[in-house]
Amino acid sequence: MSGWLVVAGLGPGAQTLVTPEVTAVLAQATDVVGYIPYVARVASRTGLTLHPSDNRVEMDRAQHALQMAAQGKRVVVVSSGDPGVFAMASAIFEALETFPEYLALDIRILPGITAMLAAAARAGAPLGHDFCAINLSDNLKPFATVEKRVSLAAQGDFAMAFYNPRSASRPHQFARVLEILRDHCEPQRLITFARAVSTPEEALNTVTLAEAVPDMADMRTVVIVGNSQTRRIGPHIYTPRSAL
Amino acid sequence: MSGWLVVAGLGPGAQTLVTPEVTAVLAQATDVVGYIPYVARVASRTGLTLHPSDNRVEMDRAQHALQMAAQGKRVVVVSSGDPGVFAMASAIFEALETFPEYLALDIRILPGITAMLAAAARAGAPLGHDFCAINLSDNLKPFATVEKRVSLAAQGDFAMAFYNPRSASRPHQFARVLEILRDHCEPQRLITFARAVSTPEEALNTVTLAEAVPDMADMRTVVIVGNSQTRRIGPHIYTPRSAL
Repeated sequence: MSGWLVVAGLGPGAQTLVTPEVTAVLAQATDVVGYIPYVARVASRTGLTLHPSDNRVEMDRAQHALQMAAQGKRVVVVSSGDPGVFAMASAIFEALETFPEYLALDIRILPGITAMLAAAARAGAPLGHDFCAINLSDNLKPFATVEKRVSLAAQGDFAMAFYNPRSASRPHQFARVLEILRDHCEPQRLITFARAVSTPEEALNTVTLAEAVPDMADMRTVVIVGNSQTRRIGPHIYTPRSAL
Repeated sequence: MSGWLVVAGLGPGAQTLVTPEVTAVLAQATDVVGYIPYVARVASRTGLTLHPSDNRVEMDRAQHALQMAAQGKRVVVVSSGDPGVFAMASAIFEALETFPEYLALDIRILPGITAMLAAAARAGAPLGHDFCAINLSDNLKPFATVEKRVSLAAQGDFAMAFYNPRSASRPHQFARVLEILRDHCEPQRLITFARAVSTPEEALNTVTLAEAVPDMADMRTVVIVGNSQTRRIGPHIYTPRSAL
């Protein structure tokens, strides 16, 4: 059995943010599996079969990838950003628990530039000190857990990055998160809404917590909340390396 | 004035983890500034001046980089990992506050693969759910702030990544952090010590919190603490996407 399975991060969008390691593994693949818009970022070529699939079928996709690798295929599961940050790497391991017959497979994870770090770089350095990454979606956890974590992160004066802040099916929850922030943080706290960073649709918008409204975020937005020391210097937003 | 200043992340060590964006900007640079081992990773060539400097002189280095850019040079400040995560990007903006005469300069930050994400990928997906990144060094903040943040992160059942866990000048603090974890977490909690990931000196070691001792970490180690759901599946360590 010479097949393998790699879960690779394509970064936030731009080809110039794809690591050479990922480019090299894609050149060796026989099969690429993933969510439709991510698979669309892989160039087709002879000998490569693309398997795009819809969102919210992560477990089917993971099982399919394991099956093909077990058949001797060289399979790359593509994720946007970094596959280990709210993406496909954990889904592959969950599938592996369900199907232990694939345990001996050669499985590797290749990191990528995750959305919050691409967004932070574009804004300046808002995550330049201790920070938390929180997925605001309650598809896989109770919303009370989201609320508790945002509250604790604010109490610890962490900077924060929010993934999946808002969707059509969850329009009210980000409003609740802003309320929690207002309970703990001063109105001048800086919040950056970074949409589709490194793509043609890129848009950055930094406002104060007092000015922030839920409509500023959608599913393609990463939201970065500064800590109490985060400030503007010219066009840049940054968090100093020191803390009180 | 056609000079510019870019703060670029070289990733954790391997050349295959340097983004094409960073490689391209290094090819345009006239001057490269940074900590000695990071500058050593940039190939010398005609027309490029390398300016290696010692650790703990971040502000001098930042001022020097700003000065050269103002003189029309094309300056790249190199960081290991991602420049926005406990690295040079914030130092540059701190210098810019001190020397506002450089405010009009063209300053850009280019992201890189940060150590915790390279380490997580090598281990599996231990940061696959909400997590915190905490710098354990008290060079720039009171150690009480470190203690408070670790405690709150544990209370929130965040996974955690610790940067700069331990050095010769701070041998006892990581022991205190392990004590705080033991106050909040079960003895079976998984901890991965990831040293020098993607370099020839790479070494990974995953133990339980009960087994963890301070000697397992040094300044080249990133420590990843799982959340309460983090588990082993075969040789992999992962955190499920769901939470209680």
